[in-house]
Amino acid sequence: MRIVLDAMGGDYAPAEVVKGAVAAAKDENLTVVLVGDQAKVGLELKKYPKKSNIETVHASEDIAMSEHPVEAVRVKKDASINVCMRLLKEGKADAVVSAGNTGAVMASALFGLGRMKGIERPAICSVFPTVKGHTVLLDIGANADCRPSHLVQFAYMGKAYIEKVIGVENPRVGLLNIGEEDEKGCELTATANKMLRLERANGLNFTGNVEGKDVLENVVDVLVCDGFVGNVVLKFGEGMVFSLTKLIRQNLSFLGWLGLLFMLGSLFKIKNRIDYKKYGGAPLLGVNGVVIITHGRAKAETIKNSITAAAKAVKQNLIETIRQVKTVENLVD
Amino acid sequence: MRIVLDAMGGDYAPAEVVKGAVAAAKDENLTVVLVGDQAKVGLELKKYPKKSNIETVHASEDIAMSEHPVEAVRVKKDASINVCMRLLKEGKADAVVSAGNTGAVMASALFGLGRMKGIERPAICSVFPTVKGHTVLLDIGANADCRPSHLVQFAYMGKAYIEKVIGVENPRVGLLNIGEEDEKGCELTATANKMLRLERANGLNFTGNVEGKDVLENVVDVLVCDGFVGNVVLKFGEGMVFSLTKLIRQNLSFLGWLGLLFMLGSLFKIKNRIDYKKYGGAPLLGVNGVVIITHGRAKAETIKNSITAAAKAVKQNLIETIRQVKTVENLVD
Repeated sequence: MRIVLDAMGGDYAPAEVVKGAVAAAKDENLTVVLVGDQAKVGLELKKYPKKSNIETVHASEDIAMSEHPVEAVRVKKDASINVCMRLLKEGKADAVVSAGNTGAVMASALFGLGRMKGIERPAICSVFPTVKGHTVLLDIGANADCRPSHLVQFAYMGKAYIEKVIGVENPRVGLLNIGEEDEKGCELTATANKMLRLERANGLNFTGNVEGKDVLENVVDVLVCDGFVGNVVLKFGEGMVFSLTKLIRQNLSFLGWLGLLFMLGSLFKIKNRIDYKKYGGAPLLGVNGVVIITHGRAKAETIKNSITAAAKAVKQNLIETIRQVKTVENLVD
Repeated sequence: MRIVLDAMGGDYAPAEVVKGAVAAAKDENLTVVLVGDQAKVGLELKKYPKKSNIETVHASEDIAMSEHPVEAVRVKKDASINVCMRLLKEGKADAVVSAGNTGAVMASALFGLGRMKGIERPAICSVFPTVKGHTVLLDIGANADCRPSHLVQFAYMGKAYIEKVIGVENPRVGLLNIGEEDEKGCELTATANKMLRLERANGLNFTGNVEGKDVLENVVDVLVCDGFVGNVVLKFGEGMVFSLTKLIRQNLSFLGWLGLLFMLGSLFKIKNRIDYKKYGGAPLLGVNGVVIITHGRAKAETIKNSITAAAKAVKQNLIETIRQVKTVENLVD
C-alpha cells in the first residue's frame, strides 16, 4: 500500500513530516511517498538510515497556512498538495495525508479527486476522546451552511468511518441539538431530525438529539452538525482546556503546587488519553479517495498515527463502503 | 424598589426561593414580592423572622419544568410567572426574577410585557467568567434561527447590560465565528460582520470575529451569536467541566488523590470564581421590563444574587438605555 504525504504541509514541515514518515515506514507493508521540494526533503531524509519503502516525488511549489486556499490551489498547479492528489487520482497511491492549510487540502481534494456520487458536501470529521471510547463529530468546518440532507449524508459517512477504521459495530448516531425532544432546535436540526428518524428503516441507528452537555459523555458514536457549530464546539473545547489550565496556574498556592506535583502521574495518564496527537487526524469524507487532514501543529508522532489511520481506511475499503450507501444517493433529490 | 419573585419557579421552589428572598430583603431599600401559592409560601416564610419588606401575592397555578411553555402560559392565566409579569406591567413592581421553565418565562414576558420597539427578537444573555473579568454571551437559546439584524440588536443590548449592570466602559463587542477574518463564517455571520462594522460609526466598539478557542480568554466583553450556537457552547462548557472531573476521578492514583487533597484550597478558590451561583442569572433583554431568568437548580444564594442584579438593572435604567439606542430601531427596516 502506498500513502502519499504532503511533505511541505504543517507548521513543522518538512522536518517533522519526514520524521513521521520514517516512523510509519517501519511497517514494511507500507510505502510512504514524500511529496515536496526535493532538496529540502532530501536533506531531512539524510538524517535517517536509507529505507527502500520511502520514496520522494518533487513538487516545485507549496501553499502557506496564510494563503487563500481555493485561489492558491488553482494558481499553484505544482503545489505539493496538488501533486499528492494527482498521484492518488492516477492510481499511483492509495491515500493522502497532509498537515497543511485545511482549506487548501479540501479544495485540492475537490478539484483533484471530485465529490463522491451521492454526496452533496464532503465533510471533515473529528475523532475525539470521551469519558469512555471515542465519538466522531462531523462536520467540523468544511461546510458553514448546511441543508438537512447534508447532515443525513454526514451521518452515513461518519458511521462508515467509525465502523471501518475505529471498529465500532452498529454505531449510535446522534444529532447535535439544543433540546432532547425530536421537534426541538433550529429549522435545520428540526428537519434533519425527521429525516434521520426515517433512515432508521434503512439501518441507521439514529438515537436522537444530543445536547451540548452530553457531547463528551459518549452517549453516541457519531455526532452530526453543521460545520459552523462543529468548528465552534471543537475550538471552544480546545480553548477551554487552555483557559482552565491558565486559571489553575494563576490561582495555585504553595500547597496547591505541591499537590499538583503529586497528581502529575495521574494527569499525565489523562493527558495521554485525551491528547489529539494519539489520534489519526481528521478524515475528509465524501471525496473519491482516502484523505486525512492532520493538525497544523502536528509533529512526527501525529503524522505517523495519521498514516496508520489512512492505511487502515484503505485496507477496510472505507471509500467503497461509503459508495455503497444507497440511501445517501437517494437523498440528493 | 420592588422586585417580584416567582416563588414557584425552579427545582427547589418554594423553599430556596423564599430563603433567597429573605436574604435579599436584608437590603431595606428593596421590597421583595413573593408570587405563588399563598399557603406554601406562607409556610416557608414562617421559618424566618417577619420582615416588613417581604410581601406575598397569591397565584393559584404554576408551570412545571416539563410543560410546553407557550401552551402553559396561554392556558394557565393565573400561573405565578403570569402574575409576576402582570404586576410589572401594571407598574406595581420594577423587575421580575424567576428560576422557572425558561421557555415559560420568555413566553410570559413576551405576552405580558411585549417586545421593545426596535427589537425584533428578545435574547437571553449569559454572564460568564473568563480568565480575567466577565464576558456576556447572547443569545443563549431564545432564538434558534436568527437574521443578521438580530445579532446587531443583541450587540447593543449586551453592551447596555454590561455597561449598566456590570460596569464595563465602552465594552468590546465580538461576533462568534469560525475564522478571524471579516469575510469568514456562514451566511449569517458574514453578513452580521458587515453590519456590525458599519455600527462602529454609531459608537459600537466592534472588534471583529472571535473564534471558539478565545471565548474564555476575555478578548471581548460582549459576544454575540445565534441562540442555537450560544446554547450548544454554554451547555458544552458545563458538560466539559463535568466530564473532565469524572475523567480525573476515574484516573487518580493514591498519590494523585493525596495531591488533589493538597490542591483543594486552590481549586475551591477557582470554583468560587467560575461558579454560576455567584452571578445574577441570565437577563432576558428586549422586553419592556427587567426580567432575570436564573438557573433551574438555583438555591438561595443564586436567587439573592439575581435579585441584586435585577435591582441594579432597575437603578441603572437598563431598559431606557436599550430604548435609546436609535440604531437598533433603524435596523428593523
